Amino acid sequence: MTTAFDGWILAAQGPSRLGTIDVVTRFLFERGCYVTEHHSFDDRLERRFFIRVEFCDLPVEAQEEFRAALAERLAPFSMEFELVPPGHKPKVVIMVSKADHCLNDLLYRQRTGALNMDIRAVVSNHPDLEPLVRAHGIDWHHFPLSADHPERKPVQERRVIEVIEGSGAELTILARYMQVLSAELCQRLDGRAINIHHSLLPGFKGARPYHQAYAKGVKLVGATAHYINDDLDEGPIIAQGVEAVDHAHYPEELVSKGRDIECLTLARAVKQHLERRVFLSGRRTVVF
Amino acid sequence: MTTAFDGWILAAQGPSRLGTIDVVTRFLFERGCYVTEHHSFDDRLERRFFIRVEFCDLPVEAQEEFRAALAERLAPFSMEFELVPPGHKPKVVIMVSKADHCLNDLLYRQRTGALNMDIRAVVSNHPDLEPLVRAHGIDWHHFPLSADHPERKPVQERRVIEVIEGSGAELTILARYMQVLSAELCQRLDGRAINIHHSLLPGFKGARPYHQAYAKGVKLVGATAHYINDDLDEGPIIAQGVEAVDHAHYPEELVSKGRDIECLTLARAVKQHLERRVFLSGRRTVVF
Amino acid sequence: MTTAFDGWILAAQGPSRLGTIDVVTRFLFERGCYVTEHHSFDDRLERRFFIRVEFCDLPVEAQEEFRAALAERLAPFSMEFELVPPGHKPKVVIMVSKADHCLNDLLYRQRTGALNMDIRAVVSNHPDLEPLVRAHGIDWHHFPLSADHPERKPVQERRVIEVIEGSGAELTILARYMQVLSAELCQRLDGRAINIHHSLLPGFKGARPYHQAYAKGVKLVGATAHYINDDLDEGPIIAQGVEAVDHAHYPEELVSKGRDIECLTLARAVKQHLERRVFLSGRRTVVF
Amino acid sequence: MTTAFDGWILAAQGPSRLGTIDVVTRFLFERGCYVTEHHSFDDRLERRFFIRVEFCDLPVEAQEEFRAALAERLAPFSMEFELVPPGHKPKVVIMVSKADHCLNDLLYRQRTGALNMDIRAVVSNHPDLEPLVRAHGIDWHHFPLSADHPERKPVQERRVIEVIEGSGAELTILARYMQVLSAELCQRLDGRAINIHHSLLPGFKGARPYHQAYAKGVKLVGATAHYINDDLDEGPIIAQGVEAVDHAHYPEELVSKGRDIECLTLARAVKQHLERRVFLSGRRTVVF
Repeated sequence: MTTAFDGWILAAQGPSRLGTIDVVTRFLFERGCYVTEHHSFDDRLERRFFIRVEFCDLPVEAQEEFRAALAERLAPFSMEFELVPPGHKPKVVIMVSKADHCLNDLLYRQRTGALNMDIRAVVSNHPDLEPLVRAHGIDWHHFPLSADHPERKPVQERRVIEVIEGSGAELTILARYMQVLSAELCQRLDGRAINIHHSLLPGFKGARPYHQAYAKGVKLVGATAHYINDDLDEGPIIAQGVEAVDHAHYPEELVSKGRDIECLTLARAVKQHLERRVFLSGRRTVVF
Repeated sequence: MTTAFDGWILAAQGPSRLGTIDVVTRFLFERGCYVTEHHSFDDRLERRFFIRVEFCDLPVEAQEEFRAALAERLAPFSMEFELVPPGHKPKVVIMVSKADHCLNDLLYRQRTGALNMDIRAVVSNHPDLEPLVRAHGIDWHHFPLSADHPERKPVQERRVIEVIEGSGAELTILARYMQVLSAELCQRLDGRAINIHHSLLPGFKGARPYHQAYAKGVKLVGATAHYINDDLDEGPIIAQGVEAVDHAHYPEELVSKGRDIECLTLARAVKQHLERRVFLSGRRTVVF
Repeated sequence: MTTAFDGWILAAQGPSRLGTIDVVTRFLFERGCYVTEHHSFDDRLERRFFIRVEFCDLPVEAQEEFRAALAERLAPFSMEFELVPPGHKPKVVIMVSKADHCLNDLLYRQRTGALNMDIRAVVSNHPDLEPLVRAHGIDWHHFPLSADHPERKPVQERRVIEVIEGSGAELTILARYMQVLSAELCQRLDGRAINIHHSLLPGFKGARPYHQAYAKGVKLVGATAHYINDDLDEGPIIAQGVEAVDHAHYPEELVSKGRDIECLTLARAVKQHLERRVFLSGRRTVVF
Repeated sequence: MTTAFDGWILAAQGPSRLGTIDVVTRFLFERGCYVTEHHSFDDRLERRFFIRVEFCDLPVEAQEEFRAALAERLAPFSMEFELVPPGHKPKVVIMVSKADHCLNDLLYRQRTGALNMDIRAVVSNHPDLEPLVRAHGIDWHHFPLSADHPERKPVQERRVIEVIEGSGAELTILARYMQVLSAELCQRLDGRAINIHHSLLPGFKGARPYHQAYAKGVKLVGATAHYINDDLDEGPIIAQGVEAVDHAHYPEELVSKGRDIECLTLARAVKQHLERRVFLSGRRTVVF
């Protein structure tokens, strides 16, 4: 239903230096590429520069030559870049446990085109969501994991990695996957996996955040979508959402009320990631 | 400009028991008092019951007899109550340091009647805001305090208490008072002093929360108005507010941007307190 | 998953008169019913009084006698009331056209218990959503209607009414049903049908509100859930939601972005209605 | 207190054509100007292109030569531009009637540097706010206007224009000026005057919008800051703000509650205008 942006996206970054914008815009101009949106930002504390450009008028068959020539131009500026052709649909793997609200929401948004992605597989440590996944014609993998057998975690995670790498996924989404990932898996997914935590981080890290929120008597609950890194619930934040609550919301009602904001916040972060709007800048993100 | 509610307010609470509402509504009915708004809530985890009623048709001269008779009726239910006559304007003392935005906002809202209170005095550990306070014809007290002389704190706080108690203040507002109160002062002000902290508690307790927020890379900043108790930034929360920020907000811009939400959140909490909408329930608040 | 409130709900209203609260609270007290939440409000402009009470400790088998006795007590006050027993699951009919986002959202919330209702049938003037409805095991009715044959509308609406009345539905939800109802159908559904309009009414009534919003250059789009009455898009408002947009949102992106707020706003209004929190007061609603 | 952005701002626009970005970024690069933020957008429906750049490393004394050379470069692209040097403080005139909340807020934001502007004069058709204005050491002009003497309006407006033009104001702010401007004055101020209307336009145009909002029973009230043009309340929208209300807010409470959102919305629009973030694109605005 929704038509995704139908042009090219170029996203690049590098150390702050004179000429970083000019080298990009000049290159595009020389090739006759018309820029429809351009955003750049210099992080003066990190001394790092970020640029994102949407453009058109580049034939798809010219892609490889364009990419090579651009790489050569950007090399003197130590800039890295990503180039995404029109209509590109990134492959994605989703990890879940028992709760289905975020998964259900992501499946719906894929179906309607609100999220321009190709869900290749869903992995879970519980069997519950198999019917929902299979009904959408998507590969399902049940890799059990229990607190009683921590020694099995390395094997379980190796199977997860096989699915992710075997599917060619550019992005892994932890849609309420209720397990702590090992440091090794975190590193492999660094910058390529988004988690939704059901609190406004850094408040209420760890388990049962809505119960913590109730005990504290907060008047706002929220959700945080962030990249995975090696410190639990401490990865760079992409998006946060919030909702007002009051004294009449017992913990179970906070859990229920929080579902909407979790879905919306995760979907927003995934959309921004898919559209190459998110850049890592130290422990923070730049989101255009 | 704003007309405050022109009726009586009755706020009461007690242990959960059958008949707690009936005893109140029956008493009001017998006296011919017409109820225009009624809110009650039973906190089933704390086993405590709260009720707030707005009513009219009670002559002011009948107040004392009414109060005594009501106390007698509520005694068997172990209920405490407050009765506020029409047009009552609570006396207030404000404590500040150097930042003037919350003070300025409170002064404006007093002037326009948006906050129905009578600011009797402003106390500060810095001299800066004297002209603003005097221009409003309000008593000003400068009680210096410095980190170099912690031994002077008890004396300074004794003078603060003298102002609060001498003024007959029902409420003390810490409008960005940048000092940690002693346990003794906290206890004296328990449930009668509101502080504004410039973060979404429990995130970013303590000093320089906007700088902490920047370092963490959050996408939302906020403010928390809470009652003072003996644990710094841990008193029962009355109101919280939030505002979206992005990567382009350096710490100083977060400080600037946060001012609006601090003012609004503090004003909201003060208004709710003045209208007797806030009840303490364990470490949480019930706000009608 | 979500546990609905497990007590009785009593909702009543009548002309403003002394004793309207007392008669209710006294009756409940005499029966030994413990009140867990009570909200009443006197609309001083409409001269009308509203009360909603949640209570427990009434055996289900006592319901009929309780209801009759209460009716007798309230009669002198000209008060109408509704009494809802614990676990009551109202029957609902949903009307749709082609867009599936609101329907999909309502189905999900029914399934998880977030909305405590029993969807008996879905009616549509288009065939598109039949598979989605049948996959949930819900009755599907396709009653075509086209602009070319306005003379068929009375027949089509008669069939709609048959489904609604045949199913025993307490509530009809127009989840993006893109047809103007006849005055006759509106009257039959008066106060018992909720529509979602995809704008912040009264702005952008009528067709293609997002395109109107784009042309006007607004910075906020929204949605309005309201009861049906005989004037298109003019029924009493129950809930409104809003989302920020900017210049980069072309009309098709407003349509896409608006879906979330439509779903959330409709779900909120339906939940409030199902919990008997909504009262009609003239052309406005009182929502507790 | 707040430090304004301490660099140059370049804002330009023109018809959509290949090379519009390159000509700007190349020029800046050749001069050794480092770009810290860049935003451009092509409005594909209006066929118009907008660019805003923040940069540094241009000596202030080079300004005139820089400006002339840039004009020559941009001429072939039919692009207009504005160049704002570091520390530039635009001159502003404010128009008010009796309500002081927006004026008070703007004065405070000027004083703290949150709004980087120089208020040269305040003009009013009522005498009430003279003390507030004079207390800030700002020129005050009382030009009475009454409904009884519409024939005096041309003379009154001529005096207003004299103040605006005599003060060298770049911007006129109508901070709740409760008079309809003549078409002639509107044209003179086209794109250079911001009005705050106390509703979410296009809902509730004209007089007493909060009373209209009450009658309609809306659940959200709002405010709209827009440029003046010749159609009342129809100028291009810059910013909108919104706040939730309920049945207990009578019209006078909506008026009171609306004040905060009026202040915030107007201040946001003025800030965006002062920072050259706002562009006119047909009847809409582009806001970077």
